[in-house]
Amino acid sequence: MHYFNFKRNILYCEALEIKRLAQKFSTPLYVYSARTIEEHFNKLKRAFKSVDPLICYSVKANSNLSILNLLVLKGAGLDIVSGGELYRAKEVGCPGEEIVYASVGKTGREIRDAIRYGIFMFNVESLAEARRINSIARRLNRKTNVSLRLNPDVSPGTHAYITTGKKETKFGMDYETVKKAFLDRKAYTHLNLVGIHIHIGSQITRGTPFVSAIKKARKLIRELKAAGVALKFFNLGGGLGIVYAQERPQTAQQFARKVLPLLKGLSLKIILEPGRFIVGNAGILVTKVIYVKDAPGRKFVIVDAAMNDLLRPALYDAYHRIVPVIKNSKFETPACRQAGNSKLFDVVGPVCESGDFLGKRRRLNVTAGDYIAVFGAGAYGFSMSSNYNSRPRAAEVLVNGQKVSLIRSRENYRDLIRGERAV
Amino acid sequence: MHYFNFKRNILYCEALEIKRLAQKFSTPLYVYSARTIEEHFNKLKRAFKSVDPLICYSVKANSNLSILNLLVLKGAGLDIVSGGELYRAKEVGCPGEEIVYASVGKTGREIRDAIRYGIFMFNVESLAEARRINSIARRLNRKTNVSLRLNPDVSPGTHAYITTGKKETKFGMDYETVKKAFLDRKAYTHLNLVGIHIHIGSQITRGTPFVSAIKKARKLIRELKAAGVALKFFNLGGGLGIVYAQERPQTAQQFARKVLPLLKGLSLKIILEPGRFIVGNAGILVTKVIYVKDAPGRKFVIVDAAMNDLLRPALYDAYHRIVPVIKNSKFETPACRQAGNSKLFDVVGPVCESGDFLGKRRRLNVTAGDYIAVFGAGAYGFSMSSNYNSRPRAAEVLVNGQKVSLIRSRENYRDLIRGERAV
Repeated sequence: MHYFNFKRNILYCEALEIKRLAQKFSTPLYVYSARTIEEHFNKLKRAFKSVDPLICYSVKANSNLSILNLLVLKGAGLDIVSGGELYRAKEVGCPGEEIVYASVGKTGREIRDAIRYGIFMFNVESLAEARRINSIARRLNRKTNVSLRLNPDVSPGTHAYITTGKKETKFGMDYETVKKAFLDRKAYTHLNLVGIHIHIGSQITRGTPFVSAIKKARKLIRELKAAGVALKFFNLGGGLGIVYAQERPQTAQQFARKVLPLLKGLSLKIILEPGRFIVGNAGILVTKVIYVKDAPGRKFVIVDAAMNDLLRPALYDAYHRIVPVIKNSKFETPACRQAGNSKLFDVVGPVCESGDFLGKRRRLNVTAGDYIAVFGAGAYGFSMSSNYNSRPRAAEVLVNGQKVSLIRSRENYRDLIRGERAV
Repeated sequence: MHYFNFKRNILYCEALEIKRLAQKFSTPLYVYSARTIEEHFNKLKRAFKSVDPLICYSVKANSNLSILNLLVLKGAGLDIVSGGELYRAKEVGCPGEEIVYASVGKTGREIRDAIRYGIFMFNVESLAEARRINSIARRLNRKTNVSLRLNPDVSPGTHAYITTGKKETKFGMDYETVKKAFLDRKAYTHLNLVGIHIHIGSQITRGTPFVSAIKKARKLIRELKAAGVALKFFNLGGGLGIVYAQERPQTAQQFARKVLPLLKGLSLKIILEPGRFIVGNAGILVTKVIYVKDAPGRKFVIVDAAMNDLLRPALYDAYHRIVPVIKNSKFETPACRQAGNSKLFDVVGPVCESGDFLGKRRRLNVTAGDYIAVFGAGAYGFSMSSNYNSRPRAAEVLVNGQKVSLIRSRENYRDLIRGERAV
């Protein structure tokens, strides 16, 4: 579900024409739909209504201040993974008590800043980290909430790079280590060990891996209860998949229906950390065709967006749907396919390596100057972008009904060299 | 060959201790050796002395202004691939007549800027681009030099993402197309079609692919000569490999010895475009150990540098040598290996995905607070870095003998949100 739709062959974001936005703000351009973001958030909230969870949006998926602001105003908390994300959370005025902080490599400074801001909870990934947080909290004379991240050793069926709940990954601690830490909780004088955290990966389309992980965590929670350790929180992490190609990911409701029965009787406050689910298909990347190379065996649509703007195809071999913003008679109609007018093109950027592609073997019929839209670019799009090949980063706009706001200006050449000196 | 060496178990860059640099400038920190850069440039120059080539350093490998400045002062030209790189070239005062410009996606604005600056030559990748440059030059009432990029369809034996001379790639034009364009040269009223360009890939360790490509180009050059088309330039591109692990790449001299005989009798000015060869092993990434996770089957050294700082391991599965900056008795001595003290660790960063690793299964014995160095990080290191996970980009320093200069300041949290608005 999203609000990027064709009306009479013209692509709109909510009430606004994409082509007009591209002309006004130039390309490459990230366009986000506020309504799509809100509805995804609301869907999850409604699906889990019976347990009234704390939903902490995963900032790393898309960290633009306007998107954080929108979600915080709707009542979301934030799931952060770095001092930089804490800074962003503060910038939008997210209260400390709605921030959870996970990362395998929290530095001393980051921990200090987070305790000072009074964040709600650390998701702790190792005993060494627990000891460090404890000692920093002691120095600050504060007591801080901690969930221990259980690595449940389940396979989520997603790309290896975004698999985080297998025991070979760097994330979390094994069952016995977590259990022992809770039993030794007195050793952590300045930590409140109040919760269990799991997060098994990203872009997970089925419910089964979640069920397996939750069952393991539930077993642990029960064992701890029997041993006199009463927890308060169960953080299920994020990872809900979205539609990029032909996936049929579980809906929020289907997910809730699978998961909620498992949580019954635990009497724990539930925390969710959705990222991609909220913003993934709430954004597109709009780009302009610079050249078309149409020779036998070598068909390329060369556009002004590149791997520096959207890394997912190169890094994860990710599929993103690509369509012209104005459907023309030549495009993807059965008639034209029969007539052989449509051809399969690789959609590539100007960056000087073969890894620079946005899509391969796509049926497109476009010419230089046409605009095309890359779908599903709301999550891990701009947030992973770089200045590779000395390319200024794209602009971002947020559409809300009839209104569009520039929420991040396009970088210029001066921005590229900021902080550099020619000695 | 490079100037990062251990003296009595302490790692130095030229005359300076890496550990001191890390303490002074903090981590993650890119450290470059000026002497290494200069010597690589000189080696190539010496090897090709008999033909006095124009050596254009490939800016995309490492575009820091100080590194460009250093090379331009030594007499290098610059090989650029974007308007941003042209901007950098101007910033260091590189004369237009020493700039060559290649890219499959040059935009109108970029072409205009380059012609106005009076660059030496465009390396043209398609006929559509040739027509566009011609029409822009006409409007500007200028005539501009052009080499046509021949895609020689040879396999360089490197990673698919940095293979650029196979016919399936987006780069250059096939033999017949290039030939026909030269024969039709009168159609391009504002272009001087004066050269052939080839560039077959990057990190190529053997001479054979170069030889095959040059032979194809040579055949074309001779056929054109017979048809009355006299060229002036032959641009061999870049792509010379360096040592990351156990490679034994050809030296500049070995490369020249293979290539020079092929160029005899052509009477063309030779252009070279080295990038990685010049800066690849002239830089290291210094990072600090935050935590060590040492459990059965799960051994991780978690450091403060991540995939946002150095993308090559995640993107290309690239190997980088990783060593502590102070060799300790526990580290990699035969005795300790026998004693089983050393263990194999994955070296990972704090970023929340499994793709975030710098090295896998490395023999290391370090503890939190130790500094380690990631070798071979001079090329495609900082230039590909991003703010993923809202991580400020690293600082860069250049060492020249006893002197160190901060050539790019570490980003701070404010830098992360520059240009953003919370609407």
